[in-house]
Amino acid sequence: MITLYTDSSPNGFKITIALEELGLTYHLRHVNIDQGENRSPAFLRLNPHGRIPVLVDESNGITLFESAAILLYLADISGQLLPVEPAKRWEAIQWLMFHAASVGPVMGQRVHFELFAADKIPQAISRYRRLMDEAFTTLDNRLAEHPYLAGDEYSIADIAQFGWTHIAQVIDFDFSTYKHLSAWYQRIGARPAVQRGIALPTRATGA
Amino acid sequence: MITLYTDSSPNGFKITIALEELGLTYHLRHVNIDQGENRSPAFLRLNPHGRIPVLVDESNGITLFESAAILLYLADISGQLLPVEPAKRWEAIQWLMFHAASVGPVMGQRVHFELFAADKIPQAISRYRRLMDEAFTTLDNRLAEHPYLAGDEYSIADIAQFGWTHIAQVIDFDFSTYKHLSAWYQRIGARPAVQRGIALPTRATGA
Repeated sequence: MITLYTDSSPNGFKITIALEELGLTYHLRHVNIDQGENRSPAFLRLNPHGRIPVLVDESNGITLFESAAILLYLADISGQLLPVEPAKRWEAIQWLMFHAASVGPVMGQRVHFELFAADKIPQAISRYRRLMDEAFTTLDNRLAEHPYLAGDEYSIADIAQFGWTHIAQVIDFDFSTYKHLSAWYQRIGARPAVQRGIALPTRATGA
Repeated sequence: MITLYTDSSPNGFKITIALEELGLTYHLRHVNIDQGENRSPAFLRLNPHGRIPVLVDESNGITLFESAAILLYLADISGQLLPVEPAKRWEAIQWLMFHAASVGPVMGQRVHFELFAADKIPQAISRYRRLMDEAFTTLDNRLAEHPYLAGDEYSIADIAQFGWTHIAQVIDFDFSTYKHLSAWYQRIGARPAVQRGIALPTRATGA
C-alpha cells in the first residue's frame, strides 16, 4: 500500500494525478500547510526539508520526497507513464527535469513576489515574468511539434508540467498567448484522472 | 563518442566531473556564455532554452539538456555512480532531485540578487539567504549521518550538489557553519576526477 502526504498545491497535484492515472490504491494524508503541519516533528521525519509531497511505499519501506523523484518512482514500479524506447524515454526524463529545475522554481518565485510578498518589488516581478516567458516559450515551441512533452506519448513530464500550469490558470497568470501550451493544457485537463487528481485533497483556490 | 557542450559554471561542472569519474572519452565544446554563444541558432537547436550543459551521444543520436537528466543518463549507460539496490538507488535519485529543484535554483537566485542585479534589494537577498540556509541545513543534517548523500555510496547526487557548492566556495558564500557539508565538500573535492572536472573548460572565477 502507498501513502501520499500532500496538500492542494502544484507539486502535490503532480502525484495525485499520477496515482489516479495508474489506478493505484493509496491512502491520502492531508498535510495542511496553512496550519504549519509540514513543520511538525512527525512530518519532518518524512521530509526534513518540510515540503510536500511525500510518498511512503509500505510494501518495501521506501519513503520519497521531491515530486520529480516520486514521479520517476511511480513510473518505475508501474512500468507506465514513461516511454520504453530509450530515445523517447530520455526525452521524457529531460522534459521532466526541465520542469523540475527550470519551470517549477521560476513559477514559485513569481507567485511569491506577485502574490505573497509584502512589498511589490518591480525588479523581482519583471525578472520572474521574463524567466517564465522564456520557459513557456520553450514549452510552447515543443508542443507546436508534438502532442506531448515526450513526443507522441503522455508521460510524467506532462503530469509534472500540468501541476504548475494548472496553478497558473487558478491564479490568473495568463498563458493564453502560448497557443500550443494552452491547447495541451485543455487536452490534459480533460483526462478523467487529471480531473480527479486536481481535487485531492481539495481544489486549489489560489489563496 | 560523447560531445559535451558546456561552460565554467555549476551546472557544467556536474557533467565534466561525472565524465571524468567514469573515464569516458568525450569531446568538450566550450560554449562561451559571456559572448552569447548559448544564444546562437546552432546551440538553440541543441537546447531551445539556451542553457548549458548539453550532451550529445553520437552512438545513438540522443541529445540531452538539463544537468540532472544528463547525470541520470550517464549513470544509466555506465552502470556506475548510482546504487543498484532499490532503496539506496531511490535515496540517491531523491537527493539528486532535491538538488535540482530545491537547492540549485535557490542558489542561482541568490547569486543573481547578490552579485549580478543592478539594484541591491534587501527583501530578495534575505529571501534567498534564508532558503539557502534551509536547504544547506537539510543537507548538513543528512551528511551528519551518512558520508554521502545517497548513504554510504558516492553518487550523481553528490556530484550535482558539489557543482553548486563549489561555486558557493568560489564566490565566498560562506558555508563553514555547516560542518558536515563542509567536510563532505573537502572530501569530494579531493577526488582527482573532481579536480579535473572543475577545471573544464576552464576554472570558475566567480566573475
